[in-house]
Amino acid sequence: MFNTTYGTTSVKTISKGRLLSVAVSLVSLGLAAGQAQAQDQQQGAQTVEERLGILEARLAEVEPKANGLEGFSFNTYARSGLLLGGDLQSAPGGPYLTPAGSVGGAVGRLGNEPDTYLEAILNYKQVAENGTKSHYRLMIADSTTSSNDWTAGDGALNVRQAYVEFSNLASFSGIFEDSSIWAGKRFDRDLNFDIHWLDSDILFLGGLGAGIYDVRFTDNVKSNFSLYGRSFIDFPADTDFVPEGSYSTDNLILTADNYFGNVQWTLSGMKAQDNNQRLVNGTTTSAAESGAHTMIAYHGDSFFGVSDGNFKLAVIHGQGLGAETKNIGADGDLHEDAVSTRVAVYGTTYLSDSWRFAPAILAETSEDRYIKGDDYQWLTFNARLAQELSANFEMQYEASWQTMDLKTMGYEGRNAVDGDYSRFTVAPTFKPQVGGFWNRPEIRLFASYSTWDDELENYAAGDPLGADSDFESGQWTFGTQMEVWF
Amino acid sequence: MFNTTYGTTSVKTISKGRLLSVAVSLVSLGLAAGQAQAQDQQQGAQTVEERLGILEARLAEVEPKANGLEGFSFNTYARSGLLLGGDLQSAPGGPYLTPAGSVGGAVGRLGNEPDTYLEAILNYKQVAENGTKSHYRLMIADSTTSSNDWTAGDGALNVRQAYVEFSNLASFSGIFEDSSIWAGKRFDRDLNFDIHWLDSDILFLGGLGAGIYDVRFTDNVKSNFSLYGRSFIDFPADTDFVPEGSYSTDNLILTADNYFGNVQWTLSGMKAQDNNQRLVNGTTTSAAESGAHTMIAYHGDSFFGVSDGNFKLAVIHGQGLGAETKNIGADGDLHEDAVSTRVAVYGTTYLSDSWRFAPAILAETSEDRYIKGDDYQWLTFNARLAQELSANFEMQYEASWQTMDLKTMGYEGRNAVDGDYSRFTVAPTFKPQVGGFWNRPEIRLFASYSTWDDELENYAAGDPLGADSDFESGQWTFGTQMEVWF
Amino acid sequence: MFNTTYGTTSVKTISKGRLLSVAVSLVSLGLAAGQAQAQDQQQGAQTVEERLGILEARLAEVEPKANGLEGFSFNTYARSGLLLGGDLQSAPGGPYLTPAGSVGGAVGRLGNEPDTYLEAILNYKQVAENGTKSHYRLMIADSTTSSNDWTAGDGALNVRQAYVEFSNLASFSGIFEDSSIWAGKRFDRDLNFDIHWLDSDILFLGGLGAGIYDVRFTDNVKSNFSLYGRSFIDFPADTDFVPEGSYSTDNLILTADNYFGNVQWTLSGMKAQDNNQRLVNGTTTSAAESGAHTMIAYHGDSFFGVSDGNFKLAVIHGQGLGAETKNIGADGDLHEDAVSTRVAVYGTTYLSDSWRFAPAILAETSEDRYIKGDDYQWLTFNARLAQELSANFEMQYEASWQTMDLKTMGYEGRNAVDGDYSRFTVAPTFKPQVGGFWNRPEIRLFASYSTWDDELENYAAGDPLGADSDFESGQWTFGTQMEVWF
Repeated sequence: MFNTTYGTTSVKTISKGRLLSVAVSLVSLGLAAGQAQAQDQQQGAQTVEERLGILEARLAEVEPKANGLEGFSFNTYARSGLLLGGDLQSAPGGPYLTPAGSVGGAVGRLGNEPDTYLEAILNYKQVAENGTKSHYRLMIADSTTSSNDWTAGDGALNVRQAYVEFSNLASFSGIFEDSSIWAGKRFDRDLNFDIHWLDSDILFLGGLGAGIYDVRFTDNVKSNFSLYGRSFIDFPADTDFVPEGSYSTDNLILTADNYFGNVQWTLSGMKAQDNNQRLVNGTTTSAAESGAHTMIAYHGDSFFGVSDGNFKLAVIHGQGLGAETKNIGADGDLHEDAVSTRVAVYGTTYLSDSWRFAPAILAETSEDRYIKGDDYQWLTFNARLAQELSANFEMQYEASWQTMDLKTMGYEGRNAVDGDYSRFTVAPTFKPQVGGFWNRPEIRLFASYSTWDDELENYAAGDPLGADSDFESGQWTFGTQMEVWF
Repeated sequence: MFNTTYGTTSVKTISKGRLLSVAVSLVSLGLAAGQAQAQDQQQGAQTVEERLGILEARLAEVEPKANGLEGFSFNTYARSGLLLGGDLQSAPGGPYLTPAGSVGGAVGRLGNEPDTYLEAILNYKQVAENGTKSHYRLMIADSTTSSNDWTAGDGALNVRQAYVEFSNLASFSGIFEDSSIWAGKRFDRDLNFDIHWLDSDILFLGGLGAGIYDVRFTDNVKSNFSLYGRSFIDFPADTDFVPEGSYSTDNLILTADNYFGNVQWTLSGMKAQDNNQRLVNGTTTSAAESGAHTMIAYHGDSFFGVSDGNFKLAVIHGQGLGAETKNIGADGDLHEDAVSTRVAVYGTTYLSDSWRFAPAILAETSEDRYIKGDDYQWLTFNARLAQELSANFEMQYEASWQTMDLKTMGYEGRNAVDGDYSRFTVAPTFKPQVGGFWNRPEIRLFASYSTWDDELENYAAGDPLGADSDFESGQWTFGTQMEVWF
Repeated sequence: MFNTTYGTTSVKTISKGRLLSVAVSLVSLGLAAGQAQAQDQQQGAQTVEERLGILEARLAEVEPKANGLEGFSFNTYARSGLLLGGDLQSAPGGPYLTPAGSVGGAVGRLGNEPDTYLEAILNYKQVAENGTKSHYRLMIADSTTSSNDWTAGDGALNVRQAYVEFSNLASFSGIFEDSSIWAGKRFDRDLNFDIHWLDSDILFLGGLGAGIYDVRFTDNVKSNFSLYGRSFIDFPADTDFVPEGSYSTDNLILTADNYFGNVQWTLSGMKAQDNNQRLVNGTTTSAAESGAHTMIAYHGDSFFGVSDGNFKLAVIHGQGLGAETKNIGADGDLHEDAVSTRVAVYGTTYLSDSWRFAPAILAETSEDRYIKGDDYQWLTFNARLAQELSANFEMQYEASWQTMDLKTMGYEGRNAVDGDYSRFTVAPTFKPQVGGFWNRPEIRLFASYSTWDDELENYAAGDPLGADSDFESGQWTFGTQMEVWF
């Protein structure tokens, strides 16, 4: 059932196209075999020019491998730290800790993450003799809130991506000349970008399938097309991850992702056969069998036109299974009449030589979401401020305010709540090189003060605000964390 | 209990043998330290010849690391895709989906694989000063049919191999001069080869142990010897993977694997103490405590002597615990009187410049396998055809036909069945470089038509043919998949 | 909740400081782009001197990546093998198999390890333009006694480390000039060293937190400071790994680790809020809420002053939660009055050109450990002897003797025992290069004879000595194993 042979014999296509000439190439390969005697003899017969040419050719073979352009390379996102309450015990946290978090309302991440989460990405890149490039990517990820040094029992190591992508295809031309094609399990290359400071994607599309990127119609107009199949999730409630039965593609999603200069317009249609038989709150309500999802976004290369920096603005609308506006097609409980609209905005700019500023807004309104008649409305305002103080040190500040009005109609035993949450964090931060919004790794210390309306504690008995009587509606948390990506 | 220190301090033996001379080596190492000032001074004092010599020596140190001959390297087998039925829901599949599949009867893989399966192989190679080479190999694998992007709950990430192998041993001579020795957990190097198109090994031996390869008696005669211990499995039913108690070597297997030119003759004896106390079908029948297994194979370097290509022909015979002809020693339910004989044949050839052809036959007869008096007979014929159409595109076709007559005597609640299964698949396929049978990666679309005798649905309630009333005995499936190895 | 973007875009700081000059650097980068035509033209215009300079600069960029000083590198500790009893079935084993093992009394590892344990360590090192270095380390580990080739059901793959460490910080000066800082999940760099032959750390500190290394007060005096939070463990009993609730930092540990020449003095204080409410043996006894732990050690650079080699001597004392002398802060069952003192000694030396010798003593006395009035005393003497016989082969011998007197007061149903255990092992060993105590990998065959007082079998029904009536108090075991680290 499992193929066990291929790992043991490596079949490669080797690109020799970069070598200066076939003659030099052959001599070079001979040298690379490391036979010192032969080398000595050759040197005797070679001019300085010849030896230089051979060295240059050999080095040109080695460089792309050392630089990760060919062969193996390694990428990572990781964070790990301690989040403590005033009682010196672990405090609940995470950007989705408020009631609005249950429907995507993130409140900002600085000083608010209790987990070790990491992605280990193993890449292997090859260039065929005809110039076609291929890229295999494997992503292994883990997530845990345990602070044990052995987490076999509560860790969650799993494979999130395993796909191949071909580019520079030798036989592709016309509008496909710059296209790349892919198949396997992946996060979409482009329908996957976030508001970093909220730890929330603006859009996330993942699953198994195939697609084509960069079909270029004119200099300024290009499109991506894909088919994804994915299981429904109740992210990240582990017990719901295992689908009944062992065949588990529940939702098929067709997408077109189109670019007109700085404007991105996506359109997705989806179909989950028999999903209307799903039990929601214990009865067959009318879970959606199909859905539609669209986003129009502007990727700005200034800070809203007023200063250097960048900004993104996105409006997302979804219906039926498309009414989960961020995780496209991931929520199977959505009602057939569900309608959601989300707005996401963020920007980054320098206020002065040493002060960085990054404000963000994320807001959503959603009706008939899970139960006919329910109504979810929330808005988060978040701002990150940083003062660069030395080559390795800066002070970071983050303020978050979230208002929510959630009429749940009893979905999953949750009560309707209406109120506000706010949090302010100070984080002395060390990094190898201060400067810019995206320089990592960082080592942080932090202290946060949070406060919220008591009513929010009634939403659900098991959530962070409702669960812990020690976690009062006005309190300090503190801790330390590293964050890295490369 | 666990050693936690060694990862933090790296102890290496560095081969300096390849350097042109010790003097050059020392200068080279000085340069490698990257002290630019020192380098400048040296350059002033060096002739062009000396600088060339140093560069050549430094590059000769770097090249084996960049090319994976020393240090870290990465290998992979992976596949991932969607397999859908006409109802747009996931379809059951896999080469072992028929009743004969329960006893090893694979039916062909193209357009028939519903899973994400991958092997990530991390190698580390060292060369000692005395020239002895060592190779550490770690294989992590995963298998899931979930199409979620988070599979902590239903993934299966685990370690399949972790062993070291020494070769070019400085002190070995005579018949051991070319030998390599190994210990740890591994798939055997040579008792592990497959019919790719069936996704079935002809032979697979894995477990924990030690052995020696390439004991060479004459130019044309050599042998491998090994001792493996392994747990019994009911592959891949997870619940049976955990042995009772925590000490779990159940079956000890001694093998001799001998080569006479193109002929391979293997002989394995095995012993599983107290296995006769095993309950099969709820009673103590007479499960085998020992077994014998032999294979004679011919590895041909033409297409059955009629055209260019290659072929393999193997006849396998086993008794008692050896009656699992493919997975040597892996099945603990086998009866003490069990007798199995399997034949495997495949070949590859080009029919014309652009048409490739690869036919295969796999067949087995087995008696008294699990219950005294049972009788299993099956035969699969499979053929893969490919038409190479451009630098990056080819059409692939696969036909499979399987006939089976299984008298189960009620083993595991299975009913006796007698009938045929057939399938035909068309798969438009993209690859970086078309050409040859083993070029990967591939990105495929596919559509399959399958049909089978209704009687086969009575075999077992839980199997793919019996379980799903939507999966009729004549139906279309389609999907997309990537496959890669390197 | 999970950041899914960063892995896809690599943000790197590239050190150009090592390049000979900015001018050369720019030409070099142009060449590195691999455009052969441009290269040809440049060569026409370049002198031999210029081409040599460019080559030297390009090679200096490649070398640190090939040598693991920048970018990705891979480290490992791994062992895997078979341990069999005279009945040819798996035998229980491990250095902690005696009753004293339940409180840390290891008895020596050679020929006594039944598991596959491995650590795969993925490093990524970067150098910022300002010279600050950063190091991300990920350690994935697995442990299993299964000898199946598929261990998804009983393997234990998990993440043990994920941290970043900064060194050579551009803006650090004075006593911090040589300091490095870190945050994340890790094993401490220095409070983590072992007696290899016992497979027991002398000290082990791990968890999540942050700290600073190498605060240098004078040439001879330096200190490390850290804050770790960690969950309590009952290592390695999996069922106890999952803490109740999902927020799991139970024990906060502050350490100062100070060096005065060869002397190391560590001091740790710890606090586990509400741990006094813990049930031990089913009742609220008086589990400790806080603890103190100290070690004074001497790291000798000879064999106890009498010959070449090295030795280490450590005395450890702990109270309350600090009374687990090795795994600092890992045991939550400790009584508030618990007091433990441990002594660890080992040394290594050559007795002659070909005989190596490494004796070790580990002993502990501990009172009121879990139940008021209990008393644990044990002492292990272990010696490893090796005779180097050829370039690739040596004979290894290990003798262990342990005496114990454990008055458990019924803790966890364990009975008081008083007695001795001894074991002698012979292990013919192959390695790439014989010589020194730390050269690995090794491939071993081994045979052991063990004997112990019958009384020790009464300690606990489920332990290796008590569980298996086939495992008599005087018996042979044998097997094979590989061990590797790099």
